[in-house]
Amino acid sequence: MAGNNTIKLYDLVLKNGLTLSPFVWRTKLAIMHKGFDIDAVPTPYAKIKTIADGKQTRLPVIEDDGKVIPDSFDIAVYLDTTYPDRPKLFNSQGERNYMRFLDQWMFANVVRHLFGCFVLDQVEHSCPEDVDYIRESRQNWFFQGRKLEYVVKDREERIPEIRKSLDPIREHLKNTKWFAGDAPNQLDFMMLSHFLWAGSIGTMPFLAKTDPLWDWLNRAADVYPDVSRDKRLHPLA
Amino acid sequence: MAGNNTIKLYDLVLKNGLTLSPFVWRTKLAIMHKGFDIDAVPTPYAKIKTIADGKQTRLPVIEDDGKVIPDSFDIAVYLDTTYPDRPKLFNSQGERNYMRFLDQWMFANVVRHLFGCFVLDQVEHSCPEDVDYIRESRQNWFFQGRKLEYVVKDREERIPEIRKSLDPIREHLKNTKWFAGDAPNQLDFMMLSHFLWAGSIGTMPFLAKTDPLWDWLNRAADVYPDVSRDKRLHPLA
Repeated sequence: MAGNNTIKLYDLVLKNGLTLSPFVWRTKLAIMHKGFDIDAVPTPYAKIKTIADGKQTRLPVIEDDGKVIPDSFDIAVYLDTTYPDRPKLFNSQGERNYMRFLDQWMFANVVRHLFGCFVLDQVEHSCPEDVDYIRESRQNWFFQGRKLEYVVKDREERIPEIRKSLDPIREHLKNTKWFAGDAPNQLDFMMLSHFLWAGSIGTMPFLAKTDPLWDWLNRAADVYPDVSRDKRLHPLA
Repeated sequence: MAGNNTIKLYDLVLKNGLTLSPFVWRTKLAIMHKGFDIDAVPTPYAKIKTIADGKQTRLPVIEDDGKVIPDSFDIAVYLDTTYPDRPKLFNSQGERNYMRFLDQWMFANVVRHLFGCFVLDQVEHSCPEDVDYIRESRQNWFFQGRKLEYVVKDREERIPEIRKSLDPIREHLKNTKWFAGDAPNQLDFMMLSHFLWAGSIGTMPFLAKTDPLWDWLNRAADVYPDVSRDKRLHPLA
């Protein structure tokens, strides 16, 4: 049992202290949903190799009762398995698969566009020790050597395509209140985490204020407003 | 309780008696999974308005204990709700949503391609009283008046695109044996139903014999081989 009802979370942060990674955002919401307090350790990319057991290469990582657990998916499964009497993150194994499919779908169809719009914003918001790494890794791994200033050029013109990419989600939410049914769970936290990531760095609002998605987005952000209503987030509309 | 352990199913058929509709295929598998026998009533499109209570416009429709239930999704929910002690089609409400999302995804990303390859095959396999309706409705509703002979022209050239459209499914199945986890359920039957639809009319094999998807496809077809291994199905590879 987590001491003091608290779980330590190594948090990937921007220079203003705000969480960057969608995987950390969803893990924060998962820990809240299980009823624990979060002992967040702000961590730039450059410090990841120094945390916990010194073997970590990515965040999130949690420490609980001396155990070190990386990977947002594995952390969610660990929390449900270790604390089965607390609110569940998943109601069935099928829901875990549902989350994986939706998550991959979001990356391939929605985040792909946003990434190309916000990658220079990310450089500008990064911790000083991360700036060079972020710029070079993004430019060389993700954009085949294209300068990031060129990648984000004319990004406003891509807004219609970004909005359209969310159509399957709008359609899906016509038939259900939350992604898994009548109550929010890790499915919603995962989906919300992509919008929190966008809000953490994105200086270009891309949703219409009248987007029907706001019904779900606002409800989802209100589940754990201490996390999801952070004043440092940029507006999405 | 279904009399004689049998549920009556109005089945949308081709002239050789084989099921056409993916919605009927998945309903057949759902009825089998609940441990009932199927009393199938072969029905061409032209006869749908004469069946059951005379109010039906689409198939599948089942009759059980005097109740008439249309819509494959509603039928699956009805079967799970009415017969909760038999094998479940869904393990949670989230899995129902998972199925809806995957099904829409399949139509938008995979079936879309296949439909444009097999629409003339469908005309040629239809019951005599359906041929004119199928040809005209497909040509005018789905293909903006383009002649079907033109729609399917050079369809072999689309095979690489069709195969690629299935990549997210191949990727997804790397992490799970069945769509909902360790055992097959309505998620798998829904996915399989799209391939059974393709096999019912498609005269162009579109999968490679070495496609890794065969691992799941063969296992799924073996769950209820009396339905899914029908000798009249065209080979997919």
